[in-house]
Amino acid sequence: MRTTATHSSPQFLNDPADAVTEYLTGLAAAHPDLLRFDRQNRIIVRADGPVPGKVGLVSGGGSGCEPLHTGLVGAGMLDAACPGEIFSSPVPDQILAATNWADAGGGVLHIIKNFTGEVMNFEMAAELAEDDRDVEIESVIVNDDVAVADTPGTAGRRGLGATVLVEKLAGAAAERGDDLASVAAVARRAAGRSRTFGIGLSSCTRPGAAGPIFDLPTGEIELGIGISGEPGCRRDGMRPARELAVILVDEVLGDLRLDSGAAVLAMLNGMGGTPVRELYLLYAEVDRLLREAGMVTLRRLVGDFVTSLDQSGAALTVLELDDELTSLWDAPVHTAALRWGR
Amino acid sequence: MRTTATHSSPQFLNDPADAVTEYLTGLAAAHPDLLRFDRQNRIIVRADGPVPGKVGLVSGGGSGCEPLHTGLVGAGMLDAACPGEIFSSPVPDQILAATNWADAGGGVLHIIKNFTGEVMNFEMAAELAEDDRDVEIESVIVNDDVAVADTPGTAGRRGLGATVLVEKLAGAAAERGDDLASVAAVARRAAGRSRTFGIGLSSCTRPGAAGPIFDLPTGEIELGIGISGEPGCRRDGMRPARELAVILVDEVLGDLRLDSGAAVLAMLNGMGGTPVRELYLLYAEVDRLLREAGMVTLRRLVGDFVTSLDQSGAALTVLELDDELTSLWDAPVHTAALRWGR
Repeated sequence: MRTTATHSSPQFLNDPADAVTEYLTGLAAAHPDLLRFDRQNRIIVRADGPVPGKVGLVSGGGSGCEPLHTGLVGAGMLDAACPGEIFSSPVPDQILAATNWADAGGGVLHIIKNFTGEVMNFEMAAELAEDDRDVEIESVIVNDDVAVADTPGTAGRRGLGATVLVEKLAGAAAERGDDLASVAAVARRAAGRSRTFGIGLSSCTRPGAAGPIFDLPTGEIELGIGISGEPGCRRDGMRPARELAVILVDEVLGDLRLDSGAAVLAMLNGMGGTPVRELYLLYAEVDRLLREAGMVTLRRLVGDFVTSLDQSGAALTVLELDDELTSLWDAPVHTAALRWGR
Repeated sequence: MRTTATHSSPQFLNDPADAVTEYLTGLAAAHPDLLRFDRQNRIIVRADGPVPGKVGLVSGGGSGCEPLHTGLVGAGMLDAACPGEIFSSPVPDQILAATNWADAGGGVLHIIKNFTGEVMNFEMAAELAEDDRDVEIESVIVNDDVAVADTPGTAGRRGLGATVLVEKLAGAAAERGDDLASVAAVARRAAGRSRTFGIGLSSCTRPGAAGPIFDLPTGEIELGIGISGEPGCRRDGMRPARELAVILVDEVLGDLRLDSGAAVLAMLNGMGGTPVRELYLLYAEVDRLLREAGMVTLRRLVGDFVTSLDQSGAALTVLELDDELTSLWDAPVHTAALRWGR
């Protein structure tokens, strides 16, 4: 049986060891109006911040998932982001530096995807920051992945696409002047009302690696993928987009269990190697299925926001909206990857 | 020698014959606030238009290059876009319908990439529209590709990434109330001051095709690619991003021949299969090289705007700015692929 390409995918790359630093350099060079790369602390921070009195928003995670989180730094969203190495959590020192930077008198919210290393390192950084400078910190854990069982004794569900929505909604709450408890409440409400399921049509290749992370035979796909290049929870056969959309919508709505007539935000996220033409084609199916399921889709987001290197694939996130969340979603945002309003 | 994957790349797809229509359906479903899919005429039009008295902007071209042009319809940019089949020009009837729709009393500007079929079909549509309804029409040809010799007796240089810049700048001129001659003059100035060169790291695969359009041996790349999946003007060996950036910058600046200190807009465009992380890594090199060449980069755009299906690769476009073009660039725009300001 033929497998997907076993050689290294062609990539824009210099020394693989510099891949993350050089990405950060390019991001900052491309968006001097929005963000700045603090090389010493290895964090991305808002160009126009910190904003006195505003609650600071800090997130971070393994690189390879761009534009998450570094491309989401700017007015109306994150104040600082901590990029780890490829698929590795940022270290506590980075998170501490970001927290201290973002602390402008209103306290700091940590937005943490539920991965063991990330949770642990954010906790350590929070303790250090509280001891060090008496920074007031709240944390929200994002765990929207319906592919993983959320049972006692496990690490629980992973944080996936909902992270983007939590960062946007909490960012808007912070921007309008909410206090730390209120911003954290918005973040928790957004995280609690979101679910995600992802499908991989291919594996992905680490910068400079000789071959893809896992082998996927031609004609097979991975269901329930995460964002660290690992295989999904089960393997299945390739099928038309309309059938893949049924899987996405069934998995997400089956877990979210909304009443008919519920107002939702639908986000269809590409994994890095899927052209936007294909994503919109898939979105047409998703949009129809959500309507058939009685959902009222008030807001939509289609594009690459949480990727997994050059993987082909897509993930659906559905968030149940209320009036406040809708208005926070519509508030201005100025980041590299998400931008609207003045 | 191993070649790139000879099987069909995995794609989100139903019946290949419906790939374009289903993309358009999904685009309209995802952006009801911005645009609308007129199925009968097979065009994408502004949701809030036509705007009485405003010069109408119409463009179009082969599908497979998304988000060009359909994702660039909206306030501050195109009024209507005509998508052809994959890598095929739109037909005159589509262009005529778009022109009639966009005609709101101020005349219509046709923005045409310099491909033989596109030029011919836009010309036919313009004649029909002028005969039919006495619509006043101006045309601008975009031919920014430095890879092709622009000599008598040839079809001349292709229209590539500059099309996005011309559509944005002319769109802003139309939005502020310029008349047809002035909008056309802005478009021609922008086109005349832009050059593009592209590099392909892979081939690409038509929807449903059994294999990629051309074979590219592992370790080789295509220099001087267009946007219809054809091989470039020459083949060369793969090399680090910093050396690829030298090729991009040398080719573009060597043709544009700007004085030291010139103000420029740099656009680094992904071809569909390159993750944004790699594009920014490459942009870091491009930004440095432009500075070293004495350019003052005032505005930047990094992302997928003119793609070639799922091809891995990137193209650099440089536009020489003046104060008016910079201010038109900064004016608000509300499209699926480009959005800022209120």
